[in-house]
Amino acid sequence: MRYDQIVDKGLRILRDAGIEHWLNLGAETQSQNRLNREYLDSLTFEMRILGDGKWADTHTNLLGVDLPAPIMPAALTVSRIINKLAMWEDPWLELFASGVAQAGSIMFVGMSTTYELQRIIDRGAPVVKIVKPLQDNEAILHRIKDAQARCAVAFGIDIDAMYLEKAFDETPGPPFLGPKSIDELKRFRDATSLPFIVKGVLSVRDALLARDELGANCLVVSNHGGEAIDYSVPVLKVLPEIRAAVPELTILVDSGFKRGTDVLKALALGADGVCFGNLLLLAFVARGAEGVAEMLDILRRELQRNMSITGARTIAGIDSSIIRTL
Amino acid sequence: MRYDQIVDKGLRILRDAGIEHWLNLGAETQSQNRLNREYLDSLTFEMRILGDGKWADTHTNLLGVDLPAPIMPAALTVSRIINKLAMWEDPWLELFASGVAQAGSIMFVGMSTTYELQRIIDRGAPVVKIVKPLQDNEAILHRIKDAQARCAVAFGIDIDAMYLEKAFDETPGPPFLGPKSIDELKRFRDATSLPFIVKGVLSVRDALLARDELGANCLVVSNHGGEAIDYSVPVLKVLPEIRAAVPELTILVDSGFKRGTDVLKALALGADGVCFGNLLLLAFVARGAEGVAEMLDILRRELQRNMSITGARTIAGIDSSIIRTL
Amino acid sequence: MRYDQIVDKGLRILRDAGIEHWLNLGAETQSQNRLNREYLDSLTFEMRILGDGKWADTHTNLLGVDLPAPIMPAALTVSRIINKLAMWEDPWLELFASGVAQAGSIMFVGMSTTYELQRIIDRGAPVVKIVKPLQDNEAILHRIKDAQARCAVAFGIDIDAMYLEKAFDETPGPPFLGPKSIDELKRFRDATSLPFIVKGVLSVRDALLARDELGANCLVVSNHGGEAIDYSVPVLKVLPEIRAAVPELTILVDSGFKRGTDVLKALALGADGVCFGNLLLLAFVARGAEGVAEMLDILRRELQRNMSITGARTIAGIDSSIIRTL
Amino acid sequence: MRYDQIVDKGLRILRDAGIEHWLNLGAETQSQNRLNREYLDSLTFEMRILGDGKWADTHTNLLGVDLPAPIMPAALTVSRIINKLAMWEDPWLELFASGVAQAGSIMFVGMSTTYELQRIIDRGAPVVKIVKPLQDNEAILHRIKDAQARCAVAFGIDIDAMYLEKAFDETPGPPFLGPKSIDELKRFRDATSLPFIVKGVLSVRDALLARDELGANCLVVSNHGGEAIDYSVPVLKVLPEIRAAVPELTILVDSGFKRGTDVLKALALGADGVCFGNLLLLAFVARGAEGVAEMLDILRRELQRNMSITGARTIAGIDSSIIRTL
Repeated sequence: MRYDQIVDKGLRILRDAGIEHWLNLGAETQSQNRLNREYLDSLTFEMRILGDGKWADTHTNLLGVDLPAPIMPAALTVSRIINKLAMWEDPWLELFASGVAQAGSIMFVGMSTTYELQRIIDRGAPVVKIVKPLQDNEAILHRIKDAQARCAVAFGIDIDAMYLEKAFDETPGPPFLGPKSIDELKRFRDATSLPFIVKGVLSVRDALLARDELGANCLVVSNHGGEAIDYSVPVLKVLPEIRAAVPELTILVDSGFKRGTDVLKALALGADGVCFGNLLLLAFVARGAEGVAEMLDILRRELQRNMSITGARTIAGIDSSIIRTL
Repeated sequence: MRYDQIVDKGLRILRDAGIEHWLNLGAETQSQNRLNREYLDSLTFEMRILGDGKWADTHTNLLGVDLPAPIMPAALTVSRIINKLAMWEDPWLELFASGVAQAGSIMFVGMSTTYELQRIIDRGAPVVKIVKPLQDNEAILHRIKDAQARCAVAFGIDIDAMYLEKAFDETPGPPFLGPKSIDELKRFRDATSLPFIVKGVLSVRDALLARDELGANCLVVSNHGGEAIDYSVPVLKVLPEIRAAVPELTILVDSGFKRGTDVLKALALGADGVCFGNLLLLAFVARGAEGVAEMLDILRRELQRNMSITGARTIAGIDSSIIRTL
Repeated sequence: MRYDQIVDKGLRILRDAGIEHWLNLGAETQSQNRLNREYLDSLTFEMRILGDGKWADTHTNLLGVDLPAPIMPAALTVSRIINKLAMWEDPWLELFASGVAQAGSIMFVGMSTTYELQRIIDRGAPVVKIVKPLQDNEAILHRIKDAQARCAVAFGIDIDAMYLEKAFDETPGPPFLGPKSIDELKRFRDATSLPFIVKGVLSVRDALLARDELGANCLVVSNHGGEAIDYSVPVLKVLPEIRAAVPELTILVDSGFKRGTDVLKALALGADGVCFGNLLLLAFVARGAEGVAEMLDILRRELQRNMSITGARTIAGIDSSIIRTL
Repeated sequence: MRYDQIVDKGLRILRDAGIEHWLNLGAETQSQNRLNREYLDSLTFEMRILGDGKWADTHTNLLGVDLPAPIMPAALTVSRIINKLAMWEDPWLELFASGVAQAGSIMFVGMSTTYELQRIIDRGAPVVKIVKPLQDNEAILHRIKDAQARCAVAFGIDIDAMYLEKAFDETPGPPFLGPKSIDELKRFRDATSLPFIVKGVLSVRDALLARDELGANCLVVSNHGGEAIDYSVPVLKVLPEIRAAVPELTILVDSGFKRGTDVLKALALGADGVCFGNLLLLAFVARGAEGVAEMLDILRRELQRNMSITGARTIAGIDSSIIRTL
């Protein structure tokens, strides 16, 4: 199926189930997805076609894993809503993980039991475990050790999750979450030899603290898909400053990315990879594991074409000067 | 009730009574609320989450009063329209004042008789009295002495009220109002030992004159909720210049503020407090005194969450560099 | 009647007659009125209220005539369309001139016979005669001498009228018009001792040529109400440059001005007066001569209020720094 | 017929045939035509009317051909869709070429057989042949020699055509196309003594390579009518940089131009000529060869009027300072 066909089918299913609003969450006035999109839309590309006459190479290595393209799912959590959408043969997140494995990408897992995590791992894709800031620090430490024992490729924590709220029911972050001090986060970091990911960075200040105080290896520059502070600065506006401040860290982005051009903009402005949440959920809702694999491959092909037109031969060779601000 | 539920209920009641347009007044083309909103919408936030792992403290002291948050009602006047909306057990402004007292905020009172003022004071919240520029100077002086005798915490004057007009019926300011010279205003200021508030400042020039010629202690940077000059400069655009010009004055803002993010933007750009008119009236219309108290508390919690996400530990510690202009 | 009532009535009459599109002419894509409005809308005002406590004085002198305010009609031409709208007791342009006389303003007359011109003059307002660039130079010279003999206060020429076209029927300027060389224009200028007005200036270059080559006393900075070149630069964007280049000339503006705030913006940016075409025609259509006088007075009062709020005591005292660009 | 009448009739015919979407192609989100238009719309003109009182002269010489104006069709390809729209007496592209000949312009031909090319040439207009990057290099060389033998005035290649895709069916460029290396392109260039055109340039980098490595005589700055990379930089934004980099080359532009003002903007910013695709196809659909000739003449007259208003006496005399950015 084509991009539009997959998206349209997924949207139709959500609409029929009365849960379409679930795709556009956000605090107070739900400004974030709109602002992120407007900023993405203000960036255009030069074309740089003349060259060796070859198609661009999208392969890359992220967190020690070789990938066909720097395109991954965002961290997803077992959700009862999606489980109810259809009579899935298996828990939906496991099916989703099969699609990720089929596409050769990395699976990012949010909240899960150790049993669920193992079943997701069994689907075959390398797994990154992202834990939420549970009030119970021991529970976090337990998850870290469990993830390491199960050979996750990296471990991370959502530092903003306790502040999230959803406009349509104005519920702040779940009560079992809470803010963590730098000392507490350091304790989590020290409990594992896995690469450590800090997710929810949206300032140079936090990027520097994550590197210097927490020893983070990887940042996810993100407004949590629109659920962090209302009117958060657009992800790609702050990304170049963060890249300049922590040049040696792996930087992923998520929140509102939709197409191959979005990926190329993020890579040109400093990201090493781009994570997709809602889009891959739509693909899954539309077509199950196959839809996830298809969509990851569509995005890879869009990126390849866009890199080719802008003169990039490799991911490392993407030139930031192709971006022209309107 | 949640924010949206309160607002929707208030709007529905006004709409059913055929007076919804009363929420969007404004001279000539009614540009001001739109321009204020567009300017607010152009300001975004960095997130600065990493720190001590504690929630922000919103307490402050304004005009000598300890407050749970720098969030207050704008000066309201006894309005026959609202009195007719329901069979209120008591005059609506007194009920409103009860809600303010319940939330621990300051009550701002506009036009009122001395009898009405006392009954509002009896509701228990500290009271600020704001007079309009009546043509009769003795009447103003009488109100000043009366307010002081009743232990108001501050006294102020609307310097723009004689120029106001409402687009939908194009009525200029009421005929019993008139412009005041600096000498006349000085006479009012000298008649009281209360802190003196100049309301309707929208330029550095007027801020300096208010401080240097009138000895004002507090300014309200405001376009009078959209009723001052059509195409007035947005409140937050001129606020940082005024803050820089009169660093020692207390500065409040009003006109078009709606959410906790709006409050944080105002505080970051130089305000000490934010006053809400229409929003609290809607809350009152929806739920009476309880609605006012609820809404003041919702705004306080939104401010607390937003301060926490942007790294402010206290009101004084709000860092203006969290604001990123689009 | 109030502003909105007059405009609404006029619009309704035009709509009922099927000629509402006549209010928004313009070449190719009709961009000009939209661009002019967008530029006007990007300008806001500081408030400067503190002062002597007096209302502003809008009186001025233009082209040797004392006026209650620098607000005038644009040059109008006898139009058969308007004549057919109602059973006017007299030719509509003469009735219109009565309204102008009643308001104490100057009447600007476009195409007219010498007989019509005299009848318009007889209505009592000082008259400015603006001729179109007729191909027949002798006819122009005849009109100049006739206007001077009838004691017009000034004489002018539309330099852009042969290029005009209307989008809805794409008719270029009437065939009896044609471009004039500087030498021809000089000949017209030399034929009269009246103040000489060049209308249709929209660049510093033409302003300098008009002054230095033609000896013009007055410019009308204008895009001919939207009918000149599609995508003409907004009138107020180029006005300050023209004012700086020819500081000693009288500068009028027209094209798309609607309210007292528009007038104050034009005066602050360098204009000496503002001419209204469509708005006064609407007022005339709605209420005849009385409507014209009423609308001129409404605009004067709006200007007075806006000057008072921004601290201008007189027309000469309007301070350009009150304008704040968004 | 007038401009709007021709366009409306063409649109109606396409709509009735269910192929209106064919006018707004584009990759991923179809952003390009919208962005090009927004950029065009941000450019306005000064008026410079005072001068010699003569109408501007639009004549020019492009690729060795004297033209009434620098206005031409974009390269068109025999399309079965258009063939089916009506019972054309001859293949539509040949009829189209008759209209071009009638207007005295140059015919640009895309994909065609040698037989079709000859029949198009027989219609009488000078012909430019533009090939697509066929995978089969020999086929390209064959077309080059054939075009030269048939006395085409120039030969060119679409360097971006293999990357094109259409949003509504997401089909990437046809499978018989493929990217060409600089060496391959040089081989094509060396195979002919005709002027060599590189079409699909949208960066200074490619402009310099086209001149220095390929020996190109002429560039077409273009996003292929919206089908190149999604979010390509607007054509007129990059045009002045390309003009400055390769001052001696002939530069044509296409993609989204619609009116005489668009042409004047392109010429003022560095183009030597402007090509129209969709607009002339609409004119052809509406009125056949006659429509093409009419529309080319309407555009010429619009350009003449616009040049006259902005003070340009000749194409070479167009002054870039007439452009004012909003």
